Parts: sequence; C-alpha cells; structure tokens
Amino acid sequence: MVQTQAPTRTVDEILSWYAGQNPGVLTNLYRLLNHGRLAGTGKMVILPVDQGFEHGPARSFAANPAAYDPLYHFRLAIAAGCNAYAAPLGFLEAGAAQFAGQIPLILKLNSHDILFDEPNPLGAQTASVKDALRLGAVGVGYTIYPGTENRRWQYEQLREIAEEAKDNGLVVVVWAYARGGDLAKEAETALDTVTYAAQIAAQLGAHIIKVKLPSAHVADKKSKQLLEENGIAIDNLSDRVSYLIRSAFDGRRIVINSGGAAKGDDAVFDEIRAIRDGGGFGSIIGRNTFQRAWDESMEFINTVIEIYKGDR
Amino acid sequence: MVQTQAPTRTVDEILSWYAGQNPGVLTNLYRLLNHGRLAGTGKMVILPVDQGFEHGPARSFAANPAAYDPLYHFRLAIAAGCNAYAAPLGFLEAGAAQFAGQIPLILKLNSHDILFDEPNPLGAQTASVKDALRLGAVGVGYTIYPGTENRRWQYEQLREIAEEAKDNGLVVVVWAYARGGDLAKEAETALDTVTYAAQIAAQLGAHIIKVKLPSAHVADKKSKQLLEENGIAIDNLSDRVSYLIRSAFDGRRIVINSGGAAKGDDAVFDEIRAIRDGGGFGSIIGRNTFQRAWDESMEFINTVIEIYKGDR
Amino acid sequence: MVQTQAPTRTVDEILSWYAGQNPGVLTNLYRLLNHGRLAGTGKMVILPVDQGFEHGPARSFAANPAAYDPLYHFRLAIAAGCNAYAAPLGFLEAGAAQFAGQIPLILKLNSHDILFDEPNPLGAQTASVKDALRLGAVGVGYTIYPGTENRRWQYEQLREIAEEAKDNGLVVVVWAYARGGDLAKEAETALDTVTYAAQIAAQLGAHIIKVKLPSAHVADKKSKQLLEENGIAIDNLSDRVSYLIRSAFDGRRIVINSGGAAKGDDAVFDEIRAIRDGGGFGSIIGRNTFQRAWDESMEFINTVIEIYKGDR
Amino acid sequence: MVQTQAPTRTVDEILSWYAGQNPGVLTNLYRLLNHGRLAGTGKMVILPVDQGFEHGPARSFAANPAAYDPLYHFRLAIAAGCNAYAAPLGFLEAGAAQFAGQIPLILKLNSHDILFDEPNPLGAQTASVKDALRLGAVGVGYTIYPGTENRRWQYEQLREIAEEAKDNGLVVVVWAYARGGDLAKEAETALDTVTYAAQIAAQLGAHIIKVKLPSAHVADKKSKQLLEENGIAIDNLSDRVSYLIRSAFDGRRIVINSGGAAKGDDAVFDEIRAIRDGGGFGSIIGRNTFQRAWDESMEFINTVIEIYKGDR
Amino acid sequence: MVQTQAPTRTVDEILSWYAGQNPGVLTNLYRLLNHGRLAGTGKMVILPVDQGFEHGPARSFAANPAAYDPLYHFRLAIAAGCNAYAAPLGFLEAGAAQFAGQIPLILKLNSHDILFDEPNPLGAQTASVKDALRLGAVGVGYTIYPGTENRRWQYEQLREIAEEAKDNGLVVVVWAYARGGDLAKEAETALDTVTYAAQIAAQLGAHIIKVKLPSAHVADKKSKQLLEENGIAIDNLSDRVSYLIRSAFDGRRIVINSGGAAKGDDAVFDEIRAIRDGGGFGSIIGRNTFQRAWDESMEFINTVIEIYKGDR
Repeated sequence: MVQTQAPTRTVDEILSWYAGQNPGVLTNLYRLLNHGRLAGTGKMVILPVDQGFEHGPARSFAANPAAYDPLYHFRLAIAAGCNAYAAPLGFLEAGAAQFAGQIPLILKLNSHDILFDEPNPLGAQTASVKDALRLGAVGVGYTIYPGTENRRWQYEQLREIAEEAKDNGLVVVVWAYARGGDLAKEAETALDTVTYAAQIAAQLGAHIIKVKLPSAHVADKKSKQLLEENGIAIDNLSDRVSYLIRSAFDGRRIVINSGGAAKGDDAVFDEIRAIRDGGGFGSIIGRNTFQRAWDESMEFINTVIEIYKGDR
Repeated sequence: MVQTQAPTRTVDEILSWYAGQNPGVLTNLYRLLNHGRLAGTGKMVILPVDQGFEHGPARSFAANPAAYDPLYHFRLAIAAGCNAYAAPLGFLEAGAAQFAGQIPLILKLNSHDILFDEPNPLGAQTASVKDALRLGAVGVGYTIYPGTENRRWQYEQLREIAEEAKDNGLVVVVWAYARGGDLAKEAETALDTVTYAAQIAAQLGAHIIKVKLPSAHVADKKSKQLLEENGIAIDNLSDRVSYLIRSAFDGRRIVINSGGAAKGDDAVFDEIRAIRDGGGFGSIIGRNTFQRAWDESMEFINTVIEIYKGDR
Repeated sequence: MVQTQAPTRTVDEILSWYAGQNPGVLTNLYRLLNHGRLAGTGKMVILPVDQGFEHGPARSFAANPAAYDPLYHFRLAIAAGCNAYAAPLGFLEAGAAQFAGQIPLILKLNSHDILFDEPNPLGAQTASVKDALRLGAVGVGYTIYPGTENRRWQYEQLREIAEEAKDNGLVVVVWAYARGGDLAKEAETALDTVTYAAQIAAQLGAHIIKVKLPSAHVADKKSKQLLEENGIAIDNLSDRVSYLIRSAFDGRRIVINSGGAAKGDDAVFDEIRAIRDGGGFGSIIGRNTFQRAWDESMEFINTVIEIYKGDR
Repeated sequence: MVQTQAPTRTVDEILSWYAGQNPGVLTNLYRLLNHGRLAGTGKMVILPVDQGFEHGPARSFAANPAAYDPLYHFRLAIAAGCNAYAAPLGFLEAGAAQFAGQIPLILKLNSHDILFDEPNPLGAQTASVKDALRLGAVGVGYTIYPGTENRRWQYEQLREIAEEAKDNGLVVVVWAYARGGDLAKEAETALDTVTYAAQIAAQLGAHIIKVKLPSAHVADKKSKQLLEENGIAIDNLSDRVSYLIRSAFDGRRIVINSGGAAKGDDAVFDEIRAIRDGGGFGSIIGRNTFQRAWDESMEFINTVIEIYKGDR
Repeated sequence: MVQTQAPTRTVDEILSWYAGQNPGVLTNLYRLLNHGRLAGTGKMVILPVDQGFEHGPARSFAANPAAYDPLYHFRLAIAAGCNAYAAPLGFLEAGAAQFAGQIPLILKLNSHDILFDEPNPLGAQTASVKDALRLGAVGVGYTIYPGTENRRWQYEQLREIAEEAKDNGLVVVVWAYARGGDLAKEAETALDTVTYAAQIAAQLGAHIIKVKLPSAHVADKKSKQLLEENGIAIDNLSDRVSYLIRSAFDGRRIVINSGGAAKGDDAVFDEIRAIRDGGGFGSIIGRNTFQRAWDESMEFINTVIEIYKGDR
C-alpha cells in the first residue's frame, strides 16, 4: 500500500509555470488548486456533468434519477470535496445563485449532441465568457476535436474565447479529443494521437488540458520509430502518463484525464494510481459518480482522493 | 369530475428556480405567470400565431377568414384570458401599439417557410431582441431543430439572442422540435427524443421550453433499457409528461406542450388532463383556436383553462 | 365608364395601420402617400428603374435610348406625377443632388444580374441604409425570393436592413417574388404562392409590399381545398387582388403590383382597373414607361393615374 | 492627321456629374483629372502595375528586369506624365513615402493570383481604405468579375469598401471584367457583356470604371435585336466606344479602357484613336509600358498622350 | 575559405526600404536586425519552433527530449545568438515572462496540424496581434499557402492581421509555401513558384518573407521562356537566390530561407553559402537545431553564423 507523501509539486511551483498570465488568471488557478480535499496537493478531481447535452437525459441520468436535478451535482461536488464542478450553461444557471462561492465553477462554452451523429463532430458555442463572469465561474471549458475536417473553426472559436477569458482573469480548460474520418477508432486513443491533441491544446494557450488516457498503441509509424529510438518507455500506463505530461510542455501545463469506457471500480482505481505515479495532475470523473447512488459515489470519490493523496 | 385545487406550485416557487437571473427576467416571468385566467396557478395557456409564415396564409387562415387580420389574434388572446400571445414581427408590429399592455407578448425571433421544403429545416432570424424591447414584449421565442445537420448554427444564433435577451430582462422561450434526415418520422416524437430536445433547450439556458407531447415509443435502444431497468413509467401520457418534466431539470424549468396533429376536441382535452396530472405547466394552442369561429374558440379555450384549474 | 369616387381609404386611415412605428417612418409614409397626382388618394404609382442592373443596359434602354441617362428617369417620375422613384445606388447618386426634394426616392438595397443565370437567385446587397439617408431617400427597397434554397440569407439580410431603416425613420419596401428549383414556373404566380410571398414580406415587417399579380392557379392542394371550402372567390382578377390584400394582414399593409409580362396597353389598363376594384394600392410601372418615347409614356401613366382616380 | 482640339469635356463639367458626392471625393477626382500631361483635358492615362500579383514576377517583369523594383514604376508614371499610378499594397508601400505627393496613387484593394487557376475567379481583399488613407492615395481600386458564380460576394465587399472610401473622400475605381463558366470566351468581350459590366459598376456607385474594349460581337440575342432595331451603330470601334460610354449613364461616368491582348504598337494607337473619337476618357496602360525599356516606354506613352490631345 | 567582409547592406539601408512605415515598425525591425551575433550585419538567423503543432510532439521532440520543454528553446535561441525566436502562442506564453527582453520574439498567428491531412491546407488563426503585444513580441508570423483553393481566406485573414500589427508597430513576417491540388510536387519548389509566392507575400505588405530555397525547375512554360530570353541565370543556387531576392521587390524586402528536407550538415552549409553569396538575408533553422543535442546544435548554428559573417 502506498504511503502518504508530501505533495511533490506545490501550488506555488505550478503557478510559476503560468508566469506572465495576469493576476486574475493566477487567482482563479489558485482557487482551483486550493479547493476541496486535494487543496494544496497540486492534484485535482473535477466533477463534469455535460452528459445531459452530449448523450441525452436518459442515458445520463436514468441510472440515478436524483441526478436529473441540477442542484444534485452542486451538492455532490461540494460534499465529495472536488476541486471544481464543470457543466454547460443551463446546469450552472440553475444553481449558481444558490451555491454561490461554495465550489469553483467551470462553464463549458461549447456542446455537441448526438441526435445527429457525425463522424466529424463540430459542436456549437452554447455560452460565453460573459456568462461565465456573470455566474461567478473561475474558468471556461471548450472541447476541440483534432483530426476532424473542420477543426479549424474550433481552434479559431477557442482562440477568441481564450483571449477574452484571459483578459477577464478566467482559467481556460480545453478538452481535446482526437476524432474524425481519417483516424481509425484505435488511433483516437493511441499514445501519439492523445499527446498530439494535448500539444495542440497547450499551443492554443490552454491553462488546463483534459485528454483521455493513452493506450500503448502508436498510430504514426514515424512517431513510433522515434519513441523507440530514443528509449521513451510506453508499456506501462504510468509511463504513458509520464510521456503525456512531458508532451504537454514537459510538465509545465496541468493535464488531467478521464477514465474512459465503463469498467470495474478496481480497474479505475488502478488507472488513478497510474496517473498519480506517472506525475499526472488529476481526474475528471463524471459517469462513475453521478450515475450511482449518493453514498456509493461518495465512497468512490473518497477512494480516488485517497489514491491521489498517496493513502492507497 | 376533478375538483378545484389550490395550485400545487405557486409563482413564488417557480421564480425561485430562476434565482440568479436578473430582476428584469424575473419581472417578465412574473408577468407571464400572473396574467389571464390562469394567473397565479403556475399553469399557462399561450396563443401562438406563427402559422402565416410557417404554413402560408391560406392553410392558416382560410378556415376562419377573420383571422387574416392581425388584430384578431390580440383580441382573441385577451378575451380568452391567455397568459400571452406569441407571433412573428409583422403580426406583433401590427397591433402592439393598439393593445399596448393588455396582454404579455412574446416575439418569435426566427421563422421558416415551406415554399422550399427541407428535411433539415434551418429557419431564419426574422426579428431581434431590440425589436422585442421596442414592442414592449415580455420575452422572445426561438425554434431549434435538434437532429438536423445544421442545428449548430441554430444553437449559436440562439446563444447570442438569449444572452442579449437576458441582459435586457426578457424571458427566453425555446421551441424544440427534433427533426432531420437521421431521425425516422416515428422517432421525432419518441419519448427519448422529445426529452433530449427539452434537455438541450434547458442546457442552452431557456427559461420556458415548448416541445411536442411525447409518444410511448423510445427510439434509442440504450435509453429504452435504462428507463426500463430503473422503473421509470412511460405507458400513460401523464407518466410521460412527468418524465418529460423530470428530464428538463427535474421540474425546475417551465415546460409547455402543443397539441400536435388535428384530432377531436375530446382527445385534446384528455391530453390537457394528462399534462395537468403529469405536472406539466400548460399549453401552446394555435390551430385549435383561431382556425374556428370566435365563439367556438372561446369555448374551447375555456374548457382548457378549466381543466388546468382542475374544474373538469 | 367608372365615375370618379372619393378615396375609400384616406391617408390618415392608412397611417393608423402603422401605429407604433416611429414618427420618422410615419413621416416618410406620409410623404409617399401625399406626393404626385395620386396624393391623398391612398393609391400609388411608383417608377422603378432597376432594369439596368437586373437585365443589362441594352435590354433595358436600347428601345428608348434617352433612358440611358440617369437624369431622364428623375424627370420622368416628376413630370408624370408619380408618388416615388425607386432605383439602385448608381442611378440615384447620379441625380439626387440635382433633383433634391422634387420626388420621394426609394433606394434599392439589393440587386441581381443575369450574367450568371441561377435558378435560385440570391442577389447582393449593393447599397446601405446610410446611403439612403445620405441621398435623402424616404425609404429602402429589398427583393426576396421565397422558395429559393438560400432565401434564409435574404430574410436575415433584410431583417438587419429593416431594423436599421426603421430606426432611422425610413420606409421599408419589400419586393417578394417566389422562385426556386422546387417551384414549377406556373406556381411562381399561383394565387397561393403570391399571397404566401406577400404574407412573408408582411411578417418580416415590410411597410409596403410589391408582388406580381396572382393568376387563378392554386399550386398547393390543401390551400386550394381550403379556399374552396370557405368560399373565397378567386376567378376574377379583382377577386384575387381582394384576396391578396386580405392575405397581407387583411388590408392593413400597403400592397402594390407590377404589370408582369409585356402585353397590349389595354390589357394593362384592365389589370389596373382590377387592382383598383379589388382594393389594391397601386402599381410599380417600369418597362411600360421608360421603354417608350417620352410623350407616349406620359400618356400611359396619365391613363393609369386616371384609372386609379376612378376617372376611366 | 487629326488636329489639336480644345477639350470637349472640361474638368468642371465632369465634376458636375458627381454632384452630391462629398467635397473630399470631388477634390480627389479633381487631382486625378488635373495631374500630368493630360491635366485639364478630361482625358486620363493611368499606369497600373498589379501584374506581379496577378501573373507572377517572371511573366510580369523578366522582359524588363528593371521593373522588379517597385520604385521604377513610381518614376515611370511621374516621368511619363501619367494622371495616376495604381498598384497593390506592397508596391505602393514600397515607394509612397519617397514619392509622396508627386503622383496621384490608386491603391488596388483586391487581388487574384493564378497559382490556382479558377474559371470563376473570386479575388481576395488585400488592402483596406485605411491603408489608402495612410499611404496618401486619392482613390481605391477593386476588381469585380460579373458572370462568375460568386460575384455576389465581390459586389458586397465592394459595397462596403465603396461606402467607407466615399465617406473618407476617396475616389472609387472599379475594374469590371465579365468572366465565368457560363460565358463563352468570345462573350467575355462582347459588346453587350462589356457594357453590362460597365453598367453594373456604375450602379454599384463607381466613380471611374475600367473595362476592356468591346468587340463587335453581341452575345445576347435579345440585346442584339434591340440594338439593331434602334439603329445603334456598333461596327466601328469608335462607335462601340460611344455606345459603351452611353451605356455607363449616358456619359455621366468616367469610363477608361485597357488595350487587351499584346499586339503591334500601331494597332494599339489605332485603338486609342477610337477611344478618343468615340468620346472615351482614357486608358490604363500596363504591359505596353513597363515591359519594355525605359526610353521605349516613354516614347510609347508620349504617343498615346499626343493622340488623346488630338495631336496625332 | 571565404574572408570576413564588411556587411554589404547595413541596417540603415535596410530600414530605408521601409520608409513610410511607422516608427514602431521601424523600431522593431531595428531590434530584429541588431540582436544576436549577426547584429548589424543585415543577416539573420531565426529559431522557429512551430513543429509541435505542425507535426506533433513525438516527431518534433522525441529525438532530443529536452526540447519538450518550452523554456529550452528560449535558452537555445539566446545562447546561440539568434536574431529572434518564433513560435505559436503556447510556447511563447510559457516563457515570455521569464525571458522578457532577452530575445526578440515573433508570435506565429496561424497554425496547422496534420491529424487531418489536407492537400489544400488552410490553417487556423491561433493567436492575435493583441497576444503579441501582451507578450512583448517584436512581430507576428503568418503562413500562406498560395496555390491552394482557399488561399483567398488566408490572404484576407493576413490582411486584417497585418493592418492591426502595423498599426501597433509590429513587424509582419510571412511564411509563403506554394501548395495545392493543382501544383505538382516538383512545382512547389520550382523557381517560378517560389518567387511568385515571395512576390505575393511582398504585395500583401509583408516586412519579412520566408520561403523555401528554389530548385532549378521552372514549372510555368511562359515564365521559363521569359527568364531564358532575358538571360536571367538560374543554374546555381546562389543565382537562384539572387533572382529570388530580385523577385521580392528587387532586394527591397528581407527574404529568408529554410533549409528544406533533412540532409547532411555540409549540404546545409553549402546552401547557407549560396544564400549569402546570392545576397540573401538569412535563415530560419528549426529541425537542424533543436532536434539534436544542445552542444551539437550550438556548433551547428555557430557554423551558420560564421558563414553569414563570411568567416567560412
């Protein structure tokens, strides 16, 4: 069993990577890093609830009908001691006044539904930086799909949003999922693809980057050869997390991961350990929390937090 | 026969769901909820007359030629004791001065004609928030077609409109009709589709959502399985209305319904009873009112209102 | 022979239909209705000269070469006692200073040429509301093509123009011609199509609507049935004009007609009588005026005006 | 040999056609008409050097390598006594300071290269009205391609540019070349096509219009018939120039011509005589000047100017 | 061995070519020309690191893993004595505060990834002029792809960016790479293509132009003939560099080159000598620097600099 450790990267060090950003951005980064049970550790657990829009209400909430209520998620994120709660406009508007100040909020600014299913998803901007400010959020979120034919419009929309957000002291969180007709399904989570997506998000000026956990597959032949020739280890998940972190400005940008496809809890906890051991910064955990009963989700998040703290 | 009941949800409670919206928005919501014969009950009957644009004047008004006159509809909504009258720019401009203050107005900001018939309707913005303010309206309306290929442009246009409307204290009413080449005709009114459309409207920040009444069909296999596994009743229309209301933020957003295809009056009244019994918030009734003679329409709306009051 | 009649609708009554428009708009409507030989009658004859752009100079002016000169048309409209002169930017710029104040001007804001012939014409905005103000115009004109695939862009461009025009006290005149790949040639002038186009223009907020004279054909089966069932007469042209006027807000919007295809003068005069007898508001007469010699055109317009006055 | 004549149209008369334009525009028109060896005659010779962008540097300058230097063209236009020098942003920026005030400048605001060759050229806006003001130019130039599928975008871009230019007192020069898939090669220079293009430019509000010299071909059957019926002479080039001038507002707009395809000098001089005799306003001469040695080009322009003066 | 020479073009002379630009632009050009080991020579070596975005992190940095760190490249450019460091937003944001003032920065404003590979690359704007100002950069960079179907959008985006950049005193650096479906692979680096691309960049108002080294191939027949007829030498690389410089305003614009495909160091050094001997202005060197170990890259750049100084 892993022993508790003093945090290896303090908040001060993390903030130093963002030197040059205005005090507003640093303040909101600080708020994110110093909230909840992982406050001050440099690790994060964020509750995202964008599934209502992305997958529809039945797929998202029928398994735990209490979750149809937007207030439920505020309560969940607060009670579990998460660092932040991220959701689209409607869900945040529904509770931002009642829970004002109790949990850092991240407003997702674009959304995509699956009522018309596209191989090259484009998403729509569904909220603004002004909305985020009006709701008291610490940051904004935006999803890009590198690999899609029209990714250009996403990058340009993100550019405008990020500029306005930073001007207004908001943190910019970018979800980067490689997709698109040219990419085989397996390539979407390939190590080189995921790290390329993370690199793009970083170059676009993201403060925090959210990607999937990379598989051991490397889709691009030349990248594969270069990784091998230069002895970069990728067999273990923790190695891949290390390489992911390195790929996103050598650890100078906060990169967090989602758990990916449904699986047993133990498998998820093993992934969390790999993120921790690989030097990752934390997790975005949605379906494994609000899609089970309150007590079970509390226990689940508790375990995740204890793993990040090094207690398990 | 159902007895009169004290309203189960008061206006105060309803307004509390919109905490965080500016006082202008709350004021206009209050006006909508406290106007007409259903004032204070938390129920609404709204008269919409956008058919002239959407279906052409002959199909809309030939059955009751008095209805060619835009003033007719103002008079109808006022005399019947509706909560509000909703129409496109031309119809509202034609009477807003003469009937100023007598009935809350909702300006429909986009419209679509069928002179060029499209499987993926897109609509055009045909009026602005500034128009709504100039005409003394309490809110704006906008139609989205989730499931269509270009729904993205609608969501983004709505986003801009909603932001400006809320800034100016106007209520945002979203008509959400699933359509598009990928959806079988039957799926358009399927329970999971209708509730998905309502969820999207809610996440986009709509204050009031207008959808069709859902059928007992569930188009998406996974949703069907989840609804069954979790014992969510959908066989009776009132159950489906309950589930619809739950799907739109667990009852924390006003959802109203249209009657759908032409049918006998008794069938419509049964639907209204199901909306009432399922906890719905009211109806938008167009064709069943202005497409019959004045006296008949008065009687029709009277029955609807008495049902909502619990008197029938 | 029809005797002179007192006007059945006075200017005051017409202005009352536009209650709620700002005094600037009312002032310019008044100017249009009270200029020329039909001043005060509620009828209008407008000279439009957009053919140079729409059909090219040879087709437009070779038949009467004096008409190549932009000043010719100002003189023609003034001498004939028209209510207004409507033309694109170049033609108005060429004479607006010299004839300042002598005739109400309507600046056509979009134009379309036939050098590239399209089944779905889209037109281009070729002048602005600011241009209209700078040139002393009383209003702006805009052509929409309901039935075309991209009519949406036209409606949205018109919306922006109309909003700015009304804000600045200008009258908005909309030319509405149904076109497009889905419409059979015969359907373009069908009664239901023309009245649908007029309804769309009215709903878009037009103050004055210009459509073609409708034929007795009804293209849409359901509309045909409804018109028949409700005993709406359409066999005589004057009946169709009555129905057209009714379709555009039951007579509460000014609707004017063009003469359509070239035909003998007597046939045109019969059409004018039908417009008058059906309660129409007047004519836009282009090719039948400037494409003949000065004296002949003077006589032609004189006859038209006398018909509208009821003198012939 | 033609004798020297007093100018048939004076600058005062020309300026009177532009009555209503603001004094800034009139001032810059005056500067154009009163500069160089043709000052005051109402005739113009303009040096245009946009070939570097339009055809590439080798095709443009290899024949006279001194012309690679942007300063060369300033010197050429000044030494030859041209009325103005027209070029894209880069070429004007390179010498505008050094030659400030020595020659009226026209900044070409759009450009098109042939590295990707299109049947429907669209061009790109490559400079702005603000650039023209900053460089001390008297006017801006813009090329439209009537007959192309997307001409609409050009007309609308020109509209915005022309509005801003006129507001700022700049002269608007429009190059109008009919092109596009629907037009046979021969039709591009047909009399009816060229005059239609000139009419469009005039209606768009151009102060000065540049078209190709029209051939005796008439592409549109109906136009051909009308020209014949009305006895409009088109057999001689000078007749066609007269008709061209008439087509562009009956001589109330300045229309200038280019020489077209490479041919012997004498043939070009004959064309210049036809322009003069037909009442044309002058020439834009590019390739026949800077693509030969300095002395030869001086002699060439000298001959052109003497022809316009009536000395040859 | 080549002897050290006094610089043939001084900074003063170079600045004189940009007369008319505002003092802010001249100041930043001066800073670029007077920084690093080539300060004052009129030659430049710039370190560009946009490969992370353009080719992905593995292909870019795995060969020298220290280069994953954005600070590495600041240190490299400073230690090597480069004139400037150019990179996208993320990389510059990561170190601009820490290395403020130590090296002139050029912010690349558009980027393109290869996760979706296109024959007609379009790129996305990923940063703004405001970003460049906020980061203390001396200039902005933008890549155009002449020859691609949608180059028009790039030219127009560049136009807006360049206008804003110049207004704010920033230097505009344009990367011009001919690409696109119509161009054979060989034609992309053909002498006429490369010089056409350089000409376009110059006409668009670029202060500094970056193109590939041209091959001896001439793709366009007419250009080939003209070059031959006029005795323009193109057989040796230094001749081609001379012709390239001439093509970009006869040497009045700074043109720099990249090394192109991977090859032996000696081959690269020979190319540098050809650039120098042909009158070129310097090199942009990316992959040959940060993709090898620190010491090797220092030695490599040292050699390049000594060649430009004439010491080798």
